[in-house]
Amino acid sequence: MQDKDWFTHSIPPPDQKSGEAALERQAMLTKPSGSLGKLEAVAVHMAAMQSALRPQASPLGIAVFAGDHGVTKEGVSAFPPEVTSQMVLNFLSGGAAISVLAKRAKAQLCIVNAGTTRRDGYPEPVIDRPVGHGTRNFLEESAMTSEETLAALSLGRNVMDEYLTQCQIVIGGEMGIGNTTCASALAAALGVAAVPDLVGPGTGLDEQGILRKQSVIEKSLVRIGSQSDPLRILTELGGYEIAALAGFYIRASMLGVTIIVDGFISSVAALVACKLNPDTRAWMLFAHVSQEPGHVSVLQVLQADPMLSLGMRLGEGSGAAIAYDLVDSACELHNNMATFDEAGVSDRD
Amino acid sequence: MQDKDWFTHSIPPPDQKSGEAALERQAMLTKPSGSLGKLEAVAVHMAAMQSALRPQASPLGIAVFAGDHGVTKEGVSAFPPEVTSQMVLNFLSGGAAISVLAKRAKAQLCIVNAGTTRRDGYPEPVIDRPVGHGTRNFLEESAMTSEETLAALSLGRNVMDEYLTQCQIVIGGEMGIGNTTCASALAAALGVAAVPDLVGPGTGLDEQGILRKQSVIEKSLVRIGSQSDPLRILTELGGYEIAALAGFYIRASMLGVTIIVDGFISSVAALVACKLNPDTRAWMLFAHVSQEPGHVSVLQVLQADPMLSLGMRLGEGSGAAIAYDLVDSACELHNNMATFDEAGVSDRD
Repeated sequence: MQDKDWFTHSIPPPDQKSGEAALERQAMLTKPSGSLGKLEAVAVHMAAMQSALRPQASPLGIAVFAGDHGVTKEGVSAFPPEVTSQMVLNFLSGGAAISVLAKRAKAQLCIVNAGTTRRDGYPEPVIDRPVGHGTRNFLEESAMTSEETLAALSLGRNVMDEYLTQCQIVIGGEMGIGNTTCASALAAALGVAAVPDLVGPGTGLDEQGILRKQSVIEKSLVRIGSQSDPLRILTELGGYEIAALAGFYIRASMLGVTIIVDGFISSVAALVACKLNPDTRAWMLFAHVSQEPGHVSVLQVLQADPMLSLGMRLGEGSGAAIAYDLVDSACELHNNMATFDEAGVSDRD
Repeated sequence: MQDKDWFTHSIPPPDQKSGEAALERQAMLTKPSGSLGKLEAVAVHMAAMQSALRPQASPLGIAVFAGDHGVTKEGVSAFPPEVTSQMVLNFLSGGAAISVLAKRAKAQLCIVNAGTTRRDGYPEPVIDRPVGHGTRNFLEESAMTSEETLAALSLGRNVMDEYLTQCQIVIGGEMGIGNTTCASALAAALGVAAVPDLVGPGTGLDEQGILRKQSVIEKSLVRIGSQSDPLRILTELGGYEIAALAGFYIRASMLGVTIIVDGFISSVAALVACKLNPDTRAWMLFAHVSQEPGHVSVLQVLQADPMLSLGMRLGEGSGAAIAYDLVDSACELHNNMATFDEAGVSDRD
């Protein structure tokens, strides 16, 4: 039996000396200094995280956590809630965006039922460990119990421990109809910004739908009152997949594994993880700025400088899988370019 | 003997019907409509260019054209001019950024001496066909002769015809100490913006160096006077590698091959290509916004919406090689994701 507070344990930071050595190497490579832009910073950060002069971007592991949300009863999504379970089967059969991208990246893909409404189970190799069958409607009551929150955090930890310990990099993805509502509520409760700045169309709400979503969140925040404990906020608002993602991120950083954070919902899970354990922040790279309007504010609070801005808003870890190529290229360039000396190229006058 | 005006011949546009069919397919894939952002537009554009519902991103060909510039005598670069030839050898031995990225992308890499100062030749497989041994100093006289301009355009065409006809996508790269000076002068002469808005540090000039570079360009523009013929402007300012790139782009579009345009210098070459033959624009994707300050203005004139903004400013085609992964992912997603029907996923309410 592990410590109930496992996720608060302190985590050693990336190795600064390896980062400095990597920075020196970048200056010796046959290119104008700084000319690879963000790719240089990524390579240096990777070197520090791996305590290595030449960091490796593979193996890559992707875990997609699926969960349902009781708040969908309030009409806050453009898609019906059964889509969560249907999409889990689509991940399995290879037809979803993250399936295609995981295959392309030669990544190990873990599909995790963290708590969808489907009660008749999923075929292998789905990791079928639902914390519940959809959270409760947080407009009316606490989305999860305290025990469920701890169980969901542990689920994320266990997926990391049981399936992905050999990975150098992991991506956490999510699927859950209603989870932009949940993530927006969490971000607001965690003090990121006011509700109207955090609520967007999600999978495709119209203007009226967005106003309804805002109103549901505002009423829910009144219900839970002012809270400062992130664990309590997470319990009140859910969801299973977001809590599991937070546990997954924290455990990855404890193991010294690099995390590429995806879009709005994943970034809110990253924020929850950082509130529970600030040491985890140093192990995160940020993939992209999502089209979902609240994402920018969440990234600002995380002091994150994402790599891409492609107008994506799909979730599943898809934006992080796209950004993975940049991380891989950054490492390849860092490791395999010649230095001025090696190539016999004159350095600047 | 080919027509001297080959580069002005009209080029059929990408197939609009295939683009429309691809757009319909995008709407049926298991994701919220539009949620892949720019990747959707890229896939649709690719489909139109290939007249195919399922466009292919490989084979990829990369041609890097190297040339030297007489204007380096004016102290406009942070690096000495012999670096151009040294970097050609670095491309060859695999130590340059584009060498690493070409290998990673499984691309065919053509290294072309379009006119460096080195007089004792290059080993195979360098395509060693110098139009001259460095252009003349355009502060004092025309950088190229009219015959050299035509020869450089033809060199780009011939590289495409002889080496890369089997490619679905090509990237043109450049290497040439002094070529941000040349490209800034070209952009100014072609009416993109005023000189101060187009001149930046290049490989790493300080503020004083930038002012000197501006002054050299301004005096050169006075020397050549107001010109409206793009061929004449190209001849006056050079360089061999930029003219070759323009010819390469035009020929690729004549063959229905997609072009990914790299950074500042490549974009100026793309602008020259579009001035010589406006039909070529429809065959171009734009990789990134470079750190070089003039790039934004050139992209605006080209009405380009680049995929990346990573603060890169290395040239060689490196930014385009990074963006290639996005194009490849866009095609993979478009071709291999399941539709709502295929996956049994409910579409939006």
